[in-house]
Amino acid sequence: MSEPAPTIDVVLSPPEIDLLPKRDLSGCTAVAFDILRATSTMITALANGAEGIWPVRSIEEAWALKKTLPGALLGGERHGERIEGFDLGNSPLEYGENVWGREIISTTTNGTLALRAVEHAGSVLAGSLLNIGALATHLRAEPARELLLVCAGTFREAALEDILAAGMLISLLPGRPLTDGAELALALYQQEKHDLAAALHRARNGRALRAKGREQEVEWCARASVMDLVAEMSREGCVRRAVPA
Amino acid sequence: MSEPAPTIDVVLSPPEIDLLPKRDLSGCTAVAFDILRATSTMITALANGAEGIWPVRSIEEAWALKKTLPGALLGGERHGERIEGFDLGNSPLEYGENVWGREIISTTTNGTLALRAVEHAGSVLAGSLLNIGALATHLRAEPARELLLVCAGTFREAALEDILAAGMLISLLPGRPLTDGAELALALYQQEKHDLAAALHRARNGRALRAKGREQEVEWCARASVMDLVAEMSREGCVRRAVPA
Repeated sequence: MSEPAPTIDVVLSPPEIDLLPKRDLSGCTAVAFDILRATSTMITALANGAEGIWPVRSIEEAWALKKTLPGALLGGERHGERIEGFDLGNSPLEYGENVWGREIISTTTNGTLALRAVEHAGSVLAGSLLNIGALATHLRAEPARELLLVCAGTFREAALEDILAAGMLISLLPGRPLTDGAELALALYQQEKHDLAAALHRARNGRALRAKGREQEVEWCARASVMDLVAEMSREGCVRRAVPA
Repeated sequence: MSEPAPTIDVVLSPPEIDLLPKRDLSGCTAVAFDILRATSTMITALANGAEGIWPVRSIEEAWALKKTLPGALLGGERHGERIEGFDLGNSPLEYGENVWGREIISTTTNGTLALRAVEHAGSVLAGSLLNIGALATHLRAEPARELLLVCAGTFREAALEDILAAGMLISLLPGRPLTDGAELALALYQQEKHDLAAALHRARNGRALRAKGREQEVEWCARASVMDLVAEMSREGCVRRAVPA
């Protein structure tokens, strides 16, 4: 008899993320999604040749790590804006040829917390729409294990675009048992798949970015499967391009 | 200038419900959904002439209240089964003509907790698919205020059927601003509206009830707008038929 396919679960919002550090995730692959914009920015940076991104929780932690890694760029945001004294904000459009060969120390609110909350998982990936096809290929090739999709959210609430991305990944991995959270994400994707950008613009974060004249960043992050790489967080906490399986 | 329409928000899962007691809900109408089965059972009991349902958190609390209300029936479940010494379980099919004119003290896991978590709201309603049309009519008639739809979930996780019911209610109240959680619920409903029963059977609770030979209860709870009443929790904590607005 063959083993049953391992389940896909989705963590919908920050209050659910708070419970993850106490959960045994050793047999699990975790994928964190912070589509607008932290994980989309990480994928963009890696696609543009960055060596790795160190997501850290606080501005103080970022400056402290900078002492150990003096060549690293400092990036991130608070309330959506670049942090004083930092080299870069949190827009993927800032992470172009300037990041080639560089390490980046990054602190954002929800994306960093989501990645850190699953750092004890068997494998920790940063996901986005930009690389979702490559992510699905990677997951199909790895030994079958439980998949936990972590939607970073906004402040303490669920973010539509993160759940949409989780749903799209689920649609690319058919045949696996789904929890109710995963069924919900898949239904959202099925409902919105004909126009992902429209869904992102309608979401709270999309509206907030539009109000700041940052529509182009929403458009950037809404493009599915345009970057062919997978981003994995190492035990030391650095998100790097994963070696193809 | 007219006021903007008040927002609809959806609380997706128990870890989010845990945050509600500290949130100011005084200007808010809260609707709790525990479709399989607690709130569906309450609506069925009221439709069959029960005077009121007292949702309490523990078995001990149920016995203590029974001393004050010796004529009340004891109902509820633990792990889906009737509690020892209680008159009734948590199946809506048990709440027929036998509940006419009676008060019921009820303890279930998630449904009770959801109702109690919003007891400080301006108005607290118990919702189900069974009475969802009446619920929408009631909400359209009341003075416009924020609407908080609370999905009771299962153990510590989101339950598909609760979010589906929230989504259906949202579809019946068009034109209001939606949070991302509310957009998600509405998308689920749009995706599943052609066969609500199929969605309930596919959900974790639906599968668990089927495994126990309780498919009929799932079918019962999946019927939309068959009971024309609204259930409101009083300040003392009793869920009664609301006086039509």
